[in-house]
Amino acid sequence: MPSYRAPVKDTQFVLSTVVGLDKYSNLSGFADATSEMVGQVLEGGAKFCENVLAPINLSGDQEGCTRHSDGSVTAPAGFKAAYDAFVEAGWGTLTADPAYGGQGLPHVVGTAIAEYLSSANMAFSMYPGLNEGAQAAIQAVGSDAQKRTYLPKMVEGRWTGTMNLTEPQCGTDLGLIRTRAEPQAPDPDGRVTHQITGTKIFISAGEHDLSDNIIHLVLAKTTGAPDNVKGISLFIVPKFIVNDDGSLGARNAVTCGSIEHKMGIHANATCVMNYDGATGYLIGEENKGLRAMFIMMNAARLGVGVQGLAQGEVAYQNAAIYARDRVQGKALAGAATPAKADPIIVHADVRRMLMDGRAFNEGARALILWGALQVDLSHKAATAEERQTADDLIGLLTPVIKGYCTDKGYDIATASQQVYGGHGYIAEWGMEQFVRDARIAQIYEGTNGIQAMDLVGRKLGQNGGRALRAYLALLAETIADAKGDARLAPLAGPLEKSVGELQAATMWLMQNGLSNPDNAGAAATSYLHLLGIVALGQMWLIMAKAAHAALDAGASDAAFFEHKLVTARYFAERYFPDCGALRRKLEAGAEALMALPAEAF
Amino acid sequence: MPSYRAPVKDTQFVLSTVVGLDKYSNLSGFADATSEMVGQVLEGGAKFCENVLAPINLSGDQEGCTRHSDGSVTAPAGFKAAYDAFVEAGWGTLTADPAYGGQGLPHVVGTAIAEYLSSANMAFSMYPGLNEGAQAAIQAVGSDAQKRTYLPKMVEGRWTGTMNLTEPQCGTDLGLIRTRAEPQAPDPDGRVTHQITGTKIFISAGEHDLSDNIIHLVLAKTTGAPDNVKGISLFIVPKFIVNDDGSLGARNAVTCGSIEHKMGIHANATCVMNYDGATGYLIGEENKGLRAMFIMMNAARLGVGVQGLAQGEVAYQNAAIYARDRVQGKALAGAATPAKADPIIVHADVRRMLMDGRAFNEGARALILWGALQVDLSHKAATAEERQTADDLIGLLTPVIKGYCTDKGYDIATASQQVYGGHGYIAEWGMEQFVRDARIAQIYEGTNGIQAMDLVGRKLGQNGGRALRAYLALLAETIADAKGDARLAPLAGPLEKSVGELQAATMWLMQNGLSNPDNAGAAATSYLHLLGIVALGQMWLIMAKAAHAALDAGASDAAFFEHKLVTARYFAERYFPDCGALRRKLEAGAEALMALPAEAF
Repeated sequence: MPSYRAPVKDTQFVLSTVVGLDKYSNLSGFADATSEMVGQVLEGGAKFCENVLAPINLSGDQEGCTRHSDGSVTAPAGFKAAYDAFVEAGWGTLTADPAYGGQGLPHVVGTAIAEYLSSANMAFSMYPGLNEGAQAAIQAVGSDAQKRTYLPKMVEGRWTGTMNLTEPQCGTDLGLIRTRAEPQAPDPDGRVTHQITGTKIFISAGEHDLSDNIIHLVLAKTTGAPDNVKGISLFIVPKFIVNDDGSLGARNAVTCGSIEHKMGIHANATCVMNYDGATGYLIGEENKGLRAMFIMMNAARLGVGVQGLAQGEVAYQNAAIYARDRVQGKALAGAATPAKADPIIVHADVRRMLMDGRAFNEGARALILWGALQVDLSHKAATAEERQTADDLIGLLTPVIKGYCTDKGYDIATASQQVYGGHGYIAEWGMEQFVRDARIAQIYEGTNGIQAMDLVGRKLGQNGGRALRAYLALLAETIADAKGDARLAPLAGPLEKSVGELQAATMWLMQNGLSNPDNAGAAATSYLHLLGIVALGQMWLIMAKAAHAALDAGASDAAFFEHKLVTARYFAERYFPDCGALRRKLEAGAEALMALPAEAF
Repeated sequence: MPSYRAPVKDTQFVLSTVVGLDKYSNLSGFADATSEMVGQVLEGGAKFCENVLAPINLSGDQEGCTRHSDGSVTAPAGFKAAYDAFVEAGWGTLTADPAYGGQGLPHVVGTAIAEYLSSANMAFSMYPGLNEGAQAAIQAVGSDAQKRTYLPKMVEGRWTGTMNLTEPQCGTDLGLIRTRAEPQAPDPDGRVTHQITGTKIFISAGEHDLSDNIIHLVLAKTTGAPDNVKGISLFIVPKFIVNDDGSLGARNAVTCGSIEHKMGIHANATCVMNYDGATGYLIGEENKGLRAMFIMMNAARLGVGVQGLAQGEVAYQNAAIYARDRVQGKALAGAATPAKADPIIVHADVRRMLMDGRAFNEGARALILWGALQVDLSHKAATAEERQTADDLIGLLTPVIKGYCTDKGYDIATASQQVYGGHGYIAEWGMEQFVRDARIAQIYEGTNGIQAMDLVGRKLGQNGGRALRAYLALLAETIADAKGDARLAPLAGPLEKSVGELQAATMWLMQNGLSNPDNAGAAATSYLHLLGIVALGQMWLIMAKAAHAALDAGASDAAFFEHKLVTARYFAERYFPDCGALRRKLEAGAEALMALPAEAF
């Protein structure tokens, strides 16, 4: 069975260097987040993930969820008990608003824990993950009464939440939604409800036995609304109607029609949800549902990026264990041991797969936690300008964190499976599950192609390119900071060159993407990957600088910092070369790509 | 449910241009292979694969194989009937020796059909595929009596064969084999048999209900043999002992202990085989079993390369159908249709995934059929020199066809799944099966890391680099042939540059790989991918030249050749740029890669 150890030391290194958590103690929520307190949270989260969630990951995949004839759904064995323990320990309350029972800790701390949850048991982590997304929407656009009614129980975890966007004919293009919301006569207190009718598909955690109530957030079109994205409203549709005293009332007319048989995340029920005149409560303004949904969506996309890292990390860890343990063949460069065969970690090609994983995981962890800090700063920084910059940066990098980290996380999971040879293909070793689970992260919450289009088609040009300018300035600052130290040159040099490729690619897009939008579409994925490598590269330069500083200061755990420097060098040697290739690919443009008639395919 | 159409027209294009089948009509077997006859074989094979095998691919995956308490194994519903039809039609006899009931057709024709079989139903195709490998070993090293006893029934398909190499402690490193072969007292006719005892794992098609007998080829160590690769012998261990009159006798002491639960190819039983003093017959010389096994292995590796292409092809086909059919979002560059939403094939990023598939599939098909021709020529060419050159070329390119085509086939299957968005993750659409099935091809018959080491550590240096010199001469010839035609420059130029990167990488290996073998190991996978792109690029240049020639000659189906030229251009723009990056990565060497102590992982 695979195992998992939460990388607490590495998280702390990132928090203290890249994030610099202690610099923000003047901000609300950060004051409590002393390094000691955060250390306790991380250690506690690590223990919970290692001891409670990881042991039921493989069994949960093999058993899957069960839908019963009455439409109820049971999660796999052990999931209910684990979820009760999760609620009991308050793991869902970390970053939530203290007004509704949350601990109000920085988002960056919650993100660190989210990685551990997802590594230990991705399917499990989606139940609280979706709940958090639903809370974010209610927090952002719900009325005070709605917040009071739903948030305390959802924050506690006794109730969970879902996002209902997709319909059979409608995925990316939400203008095609057919679910209808018919306004009802006001009740005696003057409140208007709607009757929701339609079918939603791909609803993660849509029905299960973990929580007492499930609060569905549902996109629908009100009667007479424009039949496009400007006519979409958001509704709260609870599984059980909530009485005025907060107790649970009647069962609402929403049922799970079936659960999907799918490639992975078997332990999370992916439901077809049937709304048959269910009672729904408008949340936010009518016809502004898409905006509200994107509040959830942006948070969710960062969460999905975390899943890419998380599967890369747990797959890497198990590959490393296997590579140290499995004896097969002799080292090429002199016998490593006098035995008949050496552990396969002596083989350079096995090392390559492990180092690839390490370089990605540690780099992505830094990028994701730095990104989470920007989310915090976008709400809490002292000045409007700082908040704006943080919001710009995380807006720009959200598609990169989602798209690059999940593409690469899948690659790393696949390479880690490869380390096992034939055993990697066998279910009981658990490696193929990591690959299957990782695969969904490239698809949901907007496919990675959609992420790339969001980056190139929206984020780059927004506000006259303000976000990219701010980001390029940051990159330049990091490179300039490294100039004084010759030891950093092997990393700073290629980063500078890669930033040059990024700027040239951006220029190409500006010159060719407007005249022919297909040039932007044809370039989008390459551009996203190019930016992903640059973003990880910046993180590695910051981390290398910090590692040198720690060693110069005589850090007691010198090995940790020396290994960091080796991995930084590996990243420089093996990741940056792709930047030039990506630029050349995207500069090829759309011509050959679009030349064939559709019927030729 | 996914569908499949065998790409007969494209196969014929490759056979008539890249392979130039009609040039070899003086060689044995080729005389019968007129283009008309080959056309009939391809059409017949296409129909069989499309109508009989493809319809039971998804159901076979979902049902899987069943092991019963007596150790017998049943293939999924429909497999036995389909296999009977396969035997009835003689699909297994195409390339076999006429002396044993084969049709003696060129290997290149059998390979074309093998692609169709594997696209339509990879798990099914492994039953005859393994059978063919076992026949190859018997044909190569068996005694006349052994050939007479086993080959006719195996060629016919009434009996099937397997390869038994792997043991729990022994995968790549066959020196670690523990299965024992104890010689028995000679029988009245003076024949010596052995008692085979041990456990073999990962035995594809090890037990099933499709054939009357299963002929296991088993690696084992005879009593007193050296305890390393020089002490391995090969044995024939039939499931049922064959009587002198060819009838089936006693059940041998070989049983299927269990079948593996694995990521894919569910409809092919992957067995743990227990040999409990089973009767085995030495085949070939004692202690020379590895050589015999490598005869099977080399053929099998080419067959696995075909599987990479085959899964890329069928996944691409279904992605193309979905992309033309699925309506979502409007085209960026002007409305393609007046409808509310356009088919997603209008989106450049969707096109990118489809064109990636097309460029790989058509290029790989050419490379694989050209490689199969080399196999034919290595046996049948008129002069010893020609036979040697063909053998050198296919020896050099076997790891590339196996390693590159399966890595890339997996990528293409994954990208094709991505075209489906969320539906790609759902089992009923069949796309996730293509990914899961494709995954094994990177692992078995020697992981792709082993392929890369075989290429860099053995094939490059063998006979003073004779094979690579011959291959570079061929590449130079193709490029020189294109010089006169300016229309080919956009392809010939980047190919020439990429050959330059390959030569530089080779030089680097020569200068750095001998002094430190880890440099070779660290470079191996990048080198294999670099050579893979160059090899496909050469095929594209040959095909582009042929397409221009056909158009110049006023070919009636101009669209086919025009589309070929578009895809060639796409390949040039989007595949070649990686060559420089791969070279830079491999030139980074082993230092950072090997720097960490094993316990740091």
